[in-house]
Amino acid sequence: MTGFKELFMSSTPSSFALGIDIGGTKIYTVVVDEDYNILGRGKKKTGDGSPGQLMQRLYVSIDEAIQNAGVTFDQIHTAGVGFPGPLDPDKGIILQATNLPAWSHFPLADEISTHINAPVFIDNDVNLGTYGEAMLGAGAGAKNVIGIFLGTGVGGGIIIDGKIYHGTAGTAGEVGHVIIQHGGIPGPFGLKGSVEGLTSRNAIIRSIRNDIKKGKKCSLEVLFKSGKKIGSSQLAAAYRDGDSVVIKAFHHAAELVGVTMGSLINLLAPDVVILGGGVISAVPEAVVPIAKKVAMRIMLESNRKTSRIEIAALGDDAGALGAAFYARHRLKGE
Amino acid sequence: MTGFKELFMSSTPSSFALGIDIGGTKIYTVVVDEDYNILGRGKKKTGDGSPGQLMQRLYVSIDEAIQNAGVTFDQIHTAGVGFPGPLDPDKGIILQATNLPAWSHFPLADEISTHINAPVFIDNDVNLGTYGEAMLGAGAGAKNVIGIFLGTGVGGGIIIDGKIYHGTAGTAGEVGHVIIQHGGIPGPFGLKGSVEGLTSRNAIIRSIRNDIKKGKKCSLEVLFKSGKKIGSSQLAAAYRDGDSVVIKAFHHAAELVGVTMGSLINLLAPDVVILGGGVISAVPEAVVPIAKKVAMRIMLESNRKTSRIEIAALGDDAGALGAAFYARHRLKGE
Repeated sequence: MTGFKELFMSSTPSSFALGIDIGGTKIYTVVVDEDYNILGRGKKKTGDGSPGQLMQRLYVSIDEAIQNAGVTFDQIHTAGVGFPGPLDPDKGIILQATNLPAWSHFPLADEISTHINAPVFIDNDVNLGTYGEAMLGAGAGAKNVIGIFLGTGVGGGIIIDGKIYHGTAGTAGEVGHVIIQHGGIPGPFGLKGSVEGLTSRNAIIRSIRNDIKKGKKCSLEVLFKSGKKIGSSQLAAAYRDGDSVVIKAFHHAAELVGVTMGSLINLLAPDVVILGGGVISAVPEAVVPIAKKVAMRIMLESNRKTSRIEIAALGDDAGALGAAFYARHRLKGE
Repeated sequence: MTGFKELFMSSTPSSFALGIDIGGTKIYTVVVDEDYNILGRGKKKTGDGSPGQLMQRLYVSIDEAIQNAGVTFDQIHTAGVGFPGPLDPDKGIILQATNLPAWSHFPLADEISTHINAPVFIDNDVNLGTYGEAMLGAGAGAKNVIGIFLGTGVGGGIIIDGKIYHGTAGTAGEVGHVIIQHGGIPGPFGLKGSVEGLTSRNAIIRSIRNDIKKGKKCSLEVLFKSGKKIGSSQLAAAYRDGDSVVIKAFHHAAELVGVTMGSLINLLAPDVVILGGGVISAVPEAVVPIAKKVAMRIMLESNRKTSRIEIAALGDDAGALGAAFYARHRLKGE
């Protein structure tokens, strides 16, 4: 294998790409070959501070990935970067970073480009996660894809004809801010009955909290009353232990995930809807079967044959792989 | 003017296009010049019968339009045709025609092509109505457009990057079958809380009927009890006369049209949402102001600046003009 790898490197000296996923908690970098095999990874806590300090940590993540991959800087021909928040993919500039204020108006693509001496392309992290899953993961081979990611909130991305669809404002794909139950319970931004307000981890937690307040028995009662942060893994454990309050909350969210998927399939007739995010990866069986059943009931006959529903397959690598894939296609002017 | 027209014709002998809109009640044809000025129109009742009989009536509509335009057959370089129902735009074949069973599997494009001796392109009528409005009407100059048409039911179309978006099944744009009030009142196909079930003329009529049954006073009571068909114009007159039952029904539908538009803008971040159809053209003031206000409340901040809401501007010409525009772009391989 080493012999082949060396031969490959010497014959195509610049054939490796970086995929970088900047999250609120960590900066994750992968080095991929032409077939998107991951050759090396780098991780660094995002932290906060000035853009300069943050960029230093980003470079540590990059350098670590390149070192682990056993390649050199001049073998990297491009990099893609996913960033959470509004940005300008054409200019490579962060426009606004809600959780990372120091990054606002920062020329992210140019800065990284100077460090690695290769063209760098940036896009929204959820778009690139959807793109990675659509092109290399659960949707591989698909042209039209919707990604729905259930975590603290609900993120979404849309791929049309094999490309990320940004819409006119650049913000397309905000599945979380679609109303599916007008007049329903209030969610983020004061929206009533939104996908995010009904299907996110926070929505599930709120439903459980309400039942506890009403005096229903729940194994998570002590945890809820402690005021500590509640994660997907704790919810998953209680679901698997048969806690009826937790089961009810998950199944209600699942029904509304199904409504969302069925509606979006009728609207966009995609090849695939990909369902992912922390809630799904922690406890897929609590959401996916019910959601699929409800979606099938809502879908038009013609879409039932051509639109499938898949669980995200790339886990934490989706964003970084999508970023690398995106960079190569932008490089070709696509 | 005649001098100029003759000069124009002689210098570009094949520069005119046909736009044909096949509806359940009439077949409407226009002849357009290169700037989409309508030079002539032809109308013929659709009726029923064998494909052969129907094609004869279609040819009458075409011939009339060409004659009225003062041009000749060999000056027509292409034709576009809008048809209600599932079809294959690449092959030019009708797949299924719910209201016109005789047309199923009919090679519509080839048949018309033989009659006019020029290439013919077909697409769904609502798609072409949206396309006409998007390119030549209320959305002129826009790239990403959603069309929502409120009539007996609710039709929709999506334009992405200046092209009709069909989706994988070819059925994209079914706005009527998006759920906006999960658990709400049942609509077509047993779907509860769908856009069509809540905002179509039938939804408005059902709401009025329910109130009459409950004993509420309504100026349309005699008409409703007669079992006669109720049209948009009668509803519009009662609305303008201040009938409180009719006003309530319209305003409820308007609120849900606003929910639909706000949600779809958050999802697709288009340049424009175009609101049209019989209900809107009969009584825009009953729907548009409330719908706009509700949509603005739901839209993300960034979309408020870049996504606008417009009333359809082309009336009954939208489908035929969209068909002519579409044909020219297909002809160029776009």
